[in-house]
Amino acid sequence: MLGRVGAGLGAQKDLGRGRGGGVGDEGGDRPKRPAPATRREFARVGAGAGQSAAWLLGSETSGSLRAAGLGMTSGGSRFLWLLKIMVIFLVLGIVGFMFRSMFLQAVFSSPKPELPSPAPGVQKLKLLPEERLRNLFSYDGIWLFPKNQCKCEANKEQGSYNFQDAYGQSDLPAVKARRQAEFEHFQRREGLPRPLPLLAQPNLPFGYPVHGVEVMPLHTVPIPGLQFEGPDAPVYEVNLTASLGTLNTFADVPDSVVQGRGQKQLTISTSDRKLLKFILQHVTYTSTGYQHQKVDIVSLESRSSVAKFPVTIRHPVMPKLYDPGPERKLRNLVTIATKTFLRPHKLMIMLRSIREYYPDLTVIVADDSKKPLEIKDNHVEYYTMPFGKGWFAGRNLAISQVTTKYVLWVDDDFLFNEETKIEVLVDVLEKTELDVVGGSVLGNVFQFKLLLEQSDSGACLHKRTGFFQPLDGFPSCVVTSGVVNFFLAHTERLQRVGFDPRLQRVAHSEFFIDGLGTLLVGSCPEVIIGHQSRSPVVDSELAALEKTYNTYRSNTLAQVQFKLALHYFKNHLQCAT
Amino acid sequence: MLGRVGAGLGAQKDLGRGRGGGVGDEGGDRPKRPAPATRREFARVGAGAGQSAAWLLGSETSGSLRAAGLGMTSGGSRFLWLLKIMVIFLVLGIVGFMFRSMFLQAVFSSPKPELPSPAPGVQKLKLLPEERLRNLFSYDGIWLFPKNQCKCEANKEQGSYNFQDAYGQSDLPAVKARRQAEFEHFQRREGLPRPLPLLAQPNLPFGYPVHGVEVMPLHTVPIPGLQFEGPDAPVYEVNLTASLGTLNTFADVPDSVVQGRGQKQLTISTSDRKLLKFILQHVTYTSTGYQHQKVDIVSLESRSSVAKFPVTIRHPVMPKLYDPGPERKLRNLVTIATKTFLRPHKLMIMLRSIREYYPDLTVIVADDSKKPLEIKDNHVEYYTMPFGKGWFAGRNLAISQVTTKYVLWVDDDFLFNEETKIEVLVDVLEKTELDVVGGSVLGNVFQFKLLLEQSDSGACLHKRTGFFQPLDGFPSCVVTSGVVNFFLAHTERLQRVGFDPRLQRVAHSEFFIDGLGTLLVGSCPEVIIGHQSRSPVVDSELAALEKTYNTYRSNTLAQVQFKLALHYFKNHLQCAT
Repeated sequence: MLGRVGAGLGAQKDLGRGRGGGVGDEGGDRPKRPAPATRREFARVGAGAGQSAAWLLGSETSGSLRAAGLGMTSGGSRFLWLLKIMVIFLVLGIVGFMFRSMFLQAVFSSPKPELPSPAPGVQKLKLLPEERLRNLFSYDGIWLFPKNQCKCEANKEQGSYNFQDAYGQSDLPAVKARRQAEFEHFQRREGLPRPLPLLAQPNLPFGYPVHGVEVMPLHTVPIPGLQFEGPDAPVYEVNLTASLGTLNTFADVPDSVVQGRGQKQLTISTSDRKLLKFILQHVTYTSTGYQHQKVDIVSLESRSSVAKFPVTIRHPVMPKLYDPGPERKLRNLVTIATKTFLRPHKLMIMLRSIREYYPDLTVIVADDSKKPLEIKDNHVEYYTMPFGKGWFAGRNLAISQVTTKYVLWVDDDFLFNEETKIEVLVDVLEKTELDVVGGSVLGNVFQFKLLLEQSDSGACLHKRTGFFQPLDGFPSCVVTSGVVNFFLAHTERLQRVGFDPRLQRVAHSEFFIDGLGTLLVGSCPEVIIGHQSRSPVVDSELAALEKTYNTYRSNTLAQVQFKLALHYFKNHLQCAT
Repeated sequence: MLGRVGAGLGAQKDLGRGRGGGVGDEGGDRPKRPAPATRREFARVGAGAGQSAAWLLGSETSGSLRAAGLGMTSGGSRFLWLLKIMVIFLVLGIVGFMFRSMFLQAVFSSPKPELPSPAPGVQKLKLLPEERLRNLFSYDGIWLFPKNQCKCEANKEQGSYNFQDAYGQSDLPAVKARRQAEFEHFQRREGLPRPLPLLAQPNLPFGYPVHGVEVMPLHTVPIPGLQFEGPDAPVYEVNLTASLGTLNTFADVPDSVVQGRGQKQLTISTSDRKLLKFILQHVTYTSTGYQHQKVDIVSLESRSSVAKFPVTIRHPVMPKLYDPGPERKLRNLVTIATKTFLRPHKLMIMLRSIREYYPDLTVIVADDSKKPLEIKDNHVEYYTMPFGKGWFAGRNLAISQVTTKYVLWVDDDFLFNEETKIEVLVDVLEKTELDVVGGSVLGNVFQFKLLLEQSDSGACLHKRTGFFQPLDGFPSCVVTSGVVNFFLAHTERLQRVGFDPRLQRVAHSEFFIDGLGTLLVGSCPEVIIGHQSRSPVVDSELAALEKTYNTYRSNTLAQVQFKLALHYFKNHLQCAT
């Protein structure tokens, strides 16, 4: 019997060999399972147990027993055997109990021989090489994955701009410092950078709301989903702690059970599990102090288990809705806006073309020419500006005056025709989540995508022709980042972004860049507007005006440098391709 | 010895009495702890053990032993005793091991007797009455707690406005329907209403990110914190499922281990726990399709346990920073803006007062008077508008032209003096998170708080004089919701809210109401501006102008009704006090 037991133990010992290398090679945060050592231990103990058993039972020779002084009679020998067996089993039971976990592992895990090289079937812990990752997570050839540093690489298809080159070498350090200071001020007010993700540990005995608890400043909300499902205990003590607000419960319980009502820490002590559950179901969070855009981390703790969940303190943005009126007349839905400069003849041609199709739509005209115009049209609103104040200043002025839900932007040298169906653009914005939808100017849609890679020293912006995907519900339309200067927009959203009055001369994509994160842009090529001919006018006065105009349409080096510097500072960009 | 052991066991039995009733009285979802029964069992077993011990050891009479057939010699008797004791302990040990949990309960819990009626100390489950809740969670007498319906009650201190009264009875149903349609369109585009909170169940064997995982559209992010700490099993199968994006892992593993790479469902099957851990540490989420402001719920599942966590798809808002320049000249930081109408003399007096203290700050003037002015000042930008276009239209025009970080709003009849320290206001905005900081007009700060109760049929707005709390870092300043028309503001934030050009005549608080959720407003009474006298002018032409002006400053019933209707529709409000 001993032999068999011994053999059993010895067999255990064999399991001690062979768990292959590789596991734990990478080095990690879990201690190596000391497999062979444990098995050796196990074997040693087993052997020891066997030895004790042998000692207790004696060997074939009854010599040791006699040495131990046990005399025997034949009648007593049965009893002795019984005793021996009992003792053996007891000892084995104790040993087995103490080492049961190792035993289970040994029995149930697949044993692996210890070979110098990993056996087939053993998985090494390695990551995909960076090249594979780039292929997996790229869009339009740009690797859209978190990285410390992004790059703008020029190639055949596109150039690249490094924005800090727009500054003089000697100025650059001071500019960088100023930009960093302004950026941090901006971040603080936007509640950025967002805090690191809050991680839940496994096997927490708590239920709690992972996401979605929001409270207005000074308001109170009930916290849903709080539960405690830990082991039974004589007394349960559960603590809740907040920092930007106070906690309470609307369970009606005495102060001996709940302490800290209306404080930052609420403590529940009770031996009644049902009561604990009831109280937890009725915990409230009160945001104290008027604050904006904050996330409070509330912790729920009992003994050594802690769960944490977020409560967002946020004031919802006040809606700014527009009444389309009982008949939904286009006049109450859409205002046309444009800016003009030294091109009064073109403006008038454009206005006349509008009136052919839309006799009563309000047209807002911002004009920074030298001489004010006299426009005899009851539905034109005319604004004058300081001379040459600028392109985007004028655009911003015009949209600032709109009182309808939508605004249609047109340039002063466009030409309405029978394909210029504003109603189609209205339909698209009414039925989708787009903020802006562009049409086509004489077949030219000028769609471009903007892709952004963020990094600490400024983002890398990539501009690519084309679109992201078709627009849901409108198969001939697409979703993109930028379009032509013929578009319908939600007035409220357009005003939220605005046209930067610092851009005085040539500018276009800057508006869409400023709109990233705020505007969802689409394009519907089947809505077409015409463009007036670019051939020079005959009239000498107008020709003189046009000549002056053209000087302002230049894009000088100084102006280009100004715009690059603006991207660097204002938009916190590093470079673009 | 047996006696003592038996007494010990018997003493345990005594502990079986006395634990009070009430536990489990309420009826719940947990089975009653079968306390007394267990103790009787334990006592029985203990007695049994005692009996076996007695049987093994014999009583004082060595009779039973002899019956068992153990003969003894005097030298062997010591050994026998040793053996007996060992056996007793072994048996007790086994018994103790098998019943350890019951034993621990018996020793450590306080026993309670089972009584028919609840004893004192048993907590009934009831909630605080609504009155108590109102007291607990009120601010300025307004109950800031979620409710289905809010109310505006007039009293001695304030009146109340019910906004739908501004509409004719017959129009109201159609207006309500239109407002609801516009509101839903607005909500959709803002990603509202936010989804219900995501609740985590207790004792999930998973680690996962509760909050904070964000990804830009089309980008990929690694998901932090994924863990599986479930029971050992021969094979582990873990599934991850997303809906607005796809999942992958950058662990380099064969397809037999990970399936569904780049799909909406990722399945990991392995018997290697370390490998599972490694893969989970390197899971990625890719947002597919260009979309804004969405929350994807990703689920992590193994066998029957499921954890869910949110991934927010969001494009960060593009910064709009302003370079203050190397010397931080006030001219590069602040632009003054004002609007004027039929009060050119007052405007000129105001301008002259500015120049006394600030000779080179840019002043933007929006003018919707009949005749344009000629202002000989190199740093004044002058804009004309359609006649009587309106107060807020002019304000919106003026701020649309600002190119500096801050804009100082002043009315055209103010008067700068030596206490009008713009630098102090700049300092406040530079060092805090305020978006707007008001000063005092001849000692009048006009601070008011705006409190909002949301409800499905429109929010209830409560306006109260005063402030919320002092401003951190500026003890003489406060945080509030509205101030006078003398304030410094972040240009970018001010433009984001804007002045609604639909408000043509008398209006003030509407701007701050529109700003709720976007603007953080403060007030610093020590920065004072003067106000020109209201006494009528002598000059006849100016007097005529003033007369015309005053007719526009009226607040007729029709105008009041217009503004109430605007609050109803545009701001989706129900009423105000």
